[in-house]
Amino acid sequence: MSVDGRKKWVYFFGANQTEGRADMKNLLGGKGANLAEMANLGILVPPGFTIATEACIEFYRREKRWPEGLEEQVSASLARLEQAMGRKFGDPANPLLVSVRSGARVSMPGMMDTVLNLGLNDETVRGLARQSNNERFAYDSYRRFIQMYGDVVLGVPRHLFEDRLTAKKQARGVTEDTGLNAEDLKELVAEFKQIVREQTGKPFPENPRDQLRGAINAVFDSWNNPRAIKYREIHKIPGDWGTAVNVQAMVFGNMGNDSGTGVAFTRNPSTGEKVFFGEFLINAQGEDVVAGIRTPLPISRLKEEMPDVYAQLEEINRRLEANYKDMMDIEFTVQQGKLYMLQCRVGKRTAQAAVRMAVEMAQEGLIDRATAVLRVAPEQLDQLLHPTIDPNAKVEPVAKGLPASPGAAVGQLAFHAEDAERMANDGKAVILIRAETSPEDIGGMFKAQGILTSRGGMTSHAAVVARGMGKSCVVGCGAIDIDERQKVARVNGHVLHEGDWITIDGSTGNVYVGQVPLVRPELSGVFTTLLEWADEFRALGVRANADTPKDARVAREFGAQGIGLCRTEHMFFGENRILAMRQMILSDTTEEREKALAKLLPLQRGDFYEIFKEMLGKPVVIRLLDPPLHEFLPKEPAAIRDVARELGVSPEVVESRVRALAEANPMLGLRGCRLGIVFPEIYEMQTRAIFEAAVQVAKEGHEIEPEVMIPLVSTPGELAFLRERCRKVAEEVMRGAGVQLKYLIGTMIEVPRAALVAEEIAKQADFFSFGTNDMTQMTLGFSRDDVGKYVPRYIEMGLLKADPFQTLDTEGVGQLVAMGVERGKKGNPSLVVGICGEHGGDPASIQFFHDAGLDYVSCSPYRVPIARLAAAHANLSRPRAGQKARAVEAHAAD
Amino acid sequence: MSVDGRKKWVYFFGANQTEGRADMKNLLGGKGANLAEMANLGILVPPGFTIATEACIEFYRREKRWPEGLEEQVSASLARLEQAMGRKFGDPANPLLVSVRSGARVSMPGMMDTVLNLGLNDETVRGLARQSNNERFAYDSYRRFIQMYGDVVLGVPRHLFEDRLTAKKQARGVTEDTGLNAEDLKELVAEFKQIVREQTGKPFPENPRDQLRGAINAVFDSWNNPRAIKYREIHKIPGDWGTAVNVQAMVFGNMGNDSGTGVAFTRNPSTGEKVFFGEFLINAQGEDVVAGIRTPLPISRLKEEMPDVYAQLEEINRRLEANYKDMMDIEFTVQQGKLYMLQCRVGKRTAQAAVRMAVEMAQEGLIDRATAVLRVAPEQLDQLLHPTIDPNAKVEPVAKGLPASPGAAVGQLAFHAEDAERMANDGKAVILIRAETSPEDIGGMFKAQGILTSRGGMTSHAAVVARGMGKSCVVGCGAIDIDERQKVARVNGHVLHEGDWITIDGSTGNVYVGQVPLVRPELSGVFTTLLEWADEFRALGVRANADTPKDARVAREFGAQGIGLCRTEHMFFGENRILAMRQMILSDTTEEREKALAKLLPLQRGDFYEIFKEMLGKPVVIRLLDPPLHEFLPKEPAAIRDVARELGVSPEVVESRVRALAEANPMLGLRGCRLGIVFPEIYEMQTRAIFEAAVQVAKEGHEIEPEVMIPLVSTPGELAFLRERCRKVAEEVMRGAGVQLKYLIGTMIEVPRAALVAEEIAKQADFFSFGTNDMTQMTLGFSRDDVGKYVPRYIEMGLLKADPFQTLDTEGVGQLVAMGVERGKKGNPSLVVGICGEHGGDPASIQFFHDAGLDYVSCSPYRVPIARLAAAHANLSRPRAGQKARAVEAHAAD
Repeated sequence: MSVDGRKKWVYFFGANQTEGRADMKNLLGGKGANLAEMANLGILVPPGFTIATEACIEFYRREKRWPEGLEEQVSASLARLEQAMGRKFGDPANPLLVSVRSGARVSMPGMMDTVLNLGLNDETVRGLARQSNNERFAYDSYRRFIQMYGDVVLGVPRHLFEDRLTAKKQARGVTEDTGLNAEDLKELVAEFKQIVREQTGKPFPENPRDQLRGAINAVFDSWNNPRAIKYREIHKIPGDWGTAVNVQAMVFGNMGNDSGTGVAFTRNPSTGEKVFFGEFLINAQGEDVVAGIRTPLPISRLKEEMPDVYAQLEEINRRLEANYKDMMDIEFTVQQGKLYMLQCRVGKRTAQAAVRMAVEMAQEGLIDRATAVLRVAPEQLDQLLHPTIDPNAKVEPVAKGLPASPGAAVGQLAFHAEDAERMANDGKAVILIRAETSPEDIGGMFKAQGILTSRGGMTSHAAVVARGMGKSCVVGCGAIDIDERQKVARVNGHVLHEGDWITIDGSTGNVYVGQVPLVRPELSGVFTTLLEWADEFRALGVRANADTPKDARVAREFGAQGIGLCRTEHMFFGENRILAMRQMILSDTTEEREKALAKLLPLQRGDFYEIFKEMLGKPVVIRLLDPPLHEFLPKEPAAIRDVARELGVSPEVVESRVRALAEANPMLGLRGCRLGIVFPEIYEMQTRAIFEAAVQVAKEGHEIEPEVMIPLVSTPGELAFLRERCRKVAEEVMRGAGVQLKYLIGTMIEVPRAALVAEEIAKQADFFSFGTNDMTQMTLGFSRDDVGKYVPRYIEMGLLKADPFQTLDTEGVGQLVAMGVERGKKGNPSLVVGICGEHGGDPASIQFFHDAGLDYVSCSPYRVPIARLAAAHANLSRPRAGQKARAVEAHAAD
Repeated sequence: MSVDGRKKWVYFFGANQTEGRADMKNLLGGKGANLAEMANLGILVPPGFTIATEACIEFYRREKRWPEGLEEQVSASLARLEQAMGRKFGDPANPLLVSVRSGARVSMPGMMDTVLNLGLNDETVRGLARQSNNERFAYDSYRRFIQMYGDVVLGVPRHLFEDRLTAKKQARGVTEDTGLNAEDLKELVAEFKQIVREQTGKPFPENPRDQLRGAINAVFDSWNNPRAIKYREIHKIPGDWGTAVNVQAMVFGNMGNDSGTGVAFTRNPSTGEKVFFGEFLINAQGEDVVAGIRTPLPISRLKEEMPDVYAQLEEINRRLEANYKDMMDIEFTVQQGKLYMLQCRVGKRTAQAAVRMAVEMAQEGLIDRATAVLRVAPEQLDQLLHPTIDPNAKVEPVAKGLPASPGAAVGQLAFHAEDAERMANDGKAVILIRAETSPEDIGGMFKAQGILTSRGGMTSHAAVVARGMGKSCVVGCGAIDIDERQKVARVNGHVLHEGDWITIDGSTGNVYVGQVPLVRPELSGVFTTLLEWADEFRALGVRANADTPKDARVAREFGAQGIGLCRTEHMFFGENRILAMRQMILSDTTEEREKALAKLLPLQRGDFYEIFKEMLGKPVVIRLLDPPLHEFLPKEPAAIRDVARELGVSPEVVESRVRALAEANPMLGLRGCRLGIVFPEIYEMQTRAIFEAAVQVAKEGHEIEPEVMIPLVSTPGELAFLRERCRKVAEEVMRGAGVQLKYLIGTMIEVPRAALVAEEIAKQADFFSFGTNDMTQMTLGFSRDDVGKYVPRYIEMGLLKADPFQTLDTEGVGQLVAMGVERGKKGNPSLVVGICGEHGGDPASIQFFHDAGLDYVSCSPYRVPIARLAAAHANLSRPRAGQKARAVEAHAAD
């Protein structure tokens, strides 16, 4: 911006001369823009001026010299400020004091520097004492100013001042700062100045204009201090935004009992309740509230203490919310009865509060429903669905792993799945701790409160299963050395045994020794309302990955529109099943295998029946057996002997089969549809169980629409072969029962080749479901169980933007997904395309799936609400043509 | 083709009425087209007619009914044939006899059925006896006809006839068929007819026209018999080509000592020497030669026996070679002094012969150089590179047979084709041993390392098939007594069972008990000439994968233009290296790791120095460490204790590190550039070793151009990071030595993602080298160590066209390669692109790489000649614009 052809660097605010607005944040920073906005709204703010972010950028461009015209504009603004305040900078009789604060586009709390009480020197301090009629206050302010300025502007080590302050208190025999009197403080001022002279080789600057120049430079410099850089890195804030500098007349809340200061929120930021919420202190400065030295009072008490001020604040809140359409976080100071607003900004809030405020503001008419939906970040909802560590608990984690499945859990350590089951059956809360888990551990995992592993990544077995179960899980916590045989875990100097208490937080990855108190948030009606509104705006369908009737029920309750992935692995485990499964694996002929499988048929039919009953009228996608057969065989010699005894064969037979089935890279081995090709009888049994169950449900008069999904397809021929065999069985079952059902046969697209040849594969498929977990493994060559050794380093080094098992690698894997959708729909225009990898519940990935034109996402039941909201955000940010109606319809059909 | 608007199914040949030509193979089959061609060349063939392949196709399309018009055209052609021969079908006085043979587009030796002497019945046999003045001959022909017709057309089990024949010989107290007189044969005719009646419920057809219709149908049917289907599968022949049927007047080589029959080649099919080569039998029919019942004489003897016939044959050979521009395989019959050609076709040959013939024919001016180059299938060269018995081995053969197909082979004995298949699938090297082979044995022969028979000659089934497959084969080794049922072979005092080791030398016919050491043969001058000609025609460069100085030397000798892949794994093994490597792995700090690596530095520098010296002036691509670290640690408790002792740490420390480094899927784990990222000091040591070696070579006055290759890159950032670190070390070494070398830093493209983001990666790379082994693993999700469990089944079922680790999966992996090339060159137009997976030596894959625009392929040293030839074929089949000159230049620079 320029004035008279010259660049405008400085913007005045307050005293009816305001030049900025709230929407000028990029130029004035958040604080400056909001101060201007409040002034425009007729709210009293101490006047001052903002040096624009552009000046900071220019400052760096000119190698830390002020841009042309800035000096002049600062002088002119200072003159305006002096006039507005009726005080003069450096005037011993009537001194103007100012604060100098940074203010970037986005709030970077505590990251940059602030100087208060600037303008004080040996002369003006006396004027302040006279005017405030409080010598102690004046010298305390002066002492604070030197300390702050010395630290922030002159780079004098802070502890030197603090040591001197402590010495002074000891000398006076007092423990609190307030025990020092004016004389003590005068001495401290002299001593502080001496420190500055010794450290910098120069006297403390007495000239307020020199002080101001120094403070402005210090704020500019603070934009690039290490902690600000780190903060920007973490929060992905560009380094070239620069910071604004706010120079504002000081007001004092510590000028007596008619003064005070407070920080507050227009609504409760914790619960979202529409009630004025905050704290204040009488006769105090803002830093006293923040520092926590004195205990502030709840804002409601202000109504009694200063009813007039309270009423003014209520009116200001109303005006601010009407203006900003949001809950505001404010800071104010009362100086001798007069209320000044020092700051306002949109307030941070808990997930619970975010949901309630969004819904209530829409109901109040303050915002529309779309805005309400956009007000809640989908990822936030996760907090609402799981217990969390009590925020008031004062605890330190002993280690940190990957946050694999959200929620906190407390329990006693069990080192083996069987121990976990046993202990849980004894009524104990258990945390199962393993190097890594395998399908054999399912039972123990199910019984545990939470799972902790030292190996594996975000899509390791433990992570995937725990998320599916909605159980707290921390994986890849390499700091823990687990000796499963000895049942000992060593972490950070602690030695833990079976039965010892431990707490894990699957939302952060933190691990604590002992029992940490948890809190469980309540799901309110507003939560449901918000999600219903979200459903109005989304184009993507949302299904759930659910393997059991219980999962299916949870999924349905959370609004899933069907099951996008029902894994069947677990249907081969369980006491009376694993034996038959092992018999099948140990068989040498098709006949023997069929005999063993026949024992599983009725059990699996029962499983499917139960799941179908939970999902009446909704699609259920059932994936046929996927994992390699060796996962069903025991590995330890003792277990092998047991199995041999159970099956009536010699241990050598079992051993030799275990050896024969062992694989170098099981992830790329004999699994998925390859099992179906090599042992067609397995898939035939499963298909028979599915259709016999479906027929039973249909005969009871219900609608049911099974979808059979073939995993790990890489060639069209595989699918063609298996599709035909499944179709035959399905038709046979239905013909036998005299029932005709609608059903689909489709495939997972998870092998990279499948995406490449999707056009041909689609000709054999009714639907595609992207298995982005496996696809990520193969496309990046990252074994999900082994990534713990390098992916964290990759993220740290910026080689990966995020864990690709958590957020889809859109640049790489995303290309294959997009290719698969496009080619698939080319090969079969009526193809339904979904995704059932873990990414189906990740908001960033959901935006991608929305953009790529998928029909639905499927995720673990506990992430269904997140997916619904994320899908709405995706469509609101880039609406999909002609699909909104369809989504709304789909939801209406629920 | 149609005549007067009606479809023409039948084509006449011979007797100056020939309607076909050699280039009508697709329609007339090879045999029919070549019979027509010989007739056109004025060579005497027994006249006859060919029923076109289209009739066979139509026969199947009409569910095994003859196409409209065929009946009529066969009748008309038969009438022409009767007229040409002056005989009549079914005429008791002057009967016309015919042969009915199949003839597909390509020769499928012995796969389909043949009927001879058709037209005989109880009446015409007397006419034949009268005309030949040889009753025994007539009834022997009749007996054979019934036997053959009964088997082929009527499906009567062959052994029923043979048992009766044997019984008859026993009854007459003779051992040979020739011991039976006309009366015996008359009885046999009656008995055979009785067998037919019993087995089929119908009398043997007496009407020659019925016989003919039945035989034609049988030939049509034989196109889809199981062994023909299997043969087509192995040789990738489409099932919808159909077969032609040749009906030809019979001539007889068994009408006395002025008659005979032979099979021969215009040049020696084993060595390629330009000399008439073959075998003949006096007074015999063709089947006697093939069946190996009587031992034939070498064709040179014919010059003595029938000088006139021999001279005619020499003239025919000349005419055939001039016409076909190739070596021909001929069959002839002399009937009472008159020479008839029964068949000619381009002769199969060994690789050695193919090379020699191609070069000599070009030198003779018969063909041009491009044709010569195209005459040799690249895959064939493999035979020349096959091992032979080590001349230094002190071994004595236990027996000697006929050298049917060159190359030596070592393997474990299998007595049945199915055993051979099973054992080979278990990963065993197998020698199939049989009395003789039959078309049913094809599958087992294909899987065996070599074939050994106790019966048969150089043109027996075993010999012909083995040569076609390029497999070592010894036939007719009568000294071996083979009991196939008991699976025992006795030879010269040795008793051999299934699984016993044996060595055969198909170049000498020698057979050895046990495993004899083998060596590779030296290549002859014609071989070098052919490859030099190939180099003139290729656009692709050919480098070798060579890890040691010895490999490098072989590669250079075979004409490699550089090393495309020097793996460095082995440089960490070896007695005094592995200890340092293990120390490195067991280190906890960078410093300790660097200390351990420092011990390896001078050793690896020495390795690189030696390799560079072998490849002076040529590029050498060195791949930095690729495999996961756990490959360097011991796994067994005893070995762990040893290592612990060596390193002076407790076994628990080693054990815990082994545990920590264990990976679920090592192929997708901490390996390749991930090692370089997590432990940069490893790659730095290697880079230092490379450049110190290069500098040393340069200081000795040689040109050297190292190329450093970073494996397993999946993101541009990895390469950028490692490239910078390598560059620093390289510059430092060169600065220190005062030497400036040209060098390149590039990457393998093997992770699918790398191909997807190749444009960005290329900005960091001087070159790409496709690692198609790993890329195949990840793109298909096939662990190469585990595919044995399903890939054979996949190939069998046609789900895969070939083993994707042998021949590039162009549909899937090929898309990524093409994408990687295109995007890579977009990101960096000067990018050099090669491939160093196993596919670099596979001819079919080389055609793809040529088409995809790669700059070079790199393969194992012994496949370099194959790659050179395949690259020439690729460019001759689809010339690459503007690149020929470059390739020639590149080769000239060798």
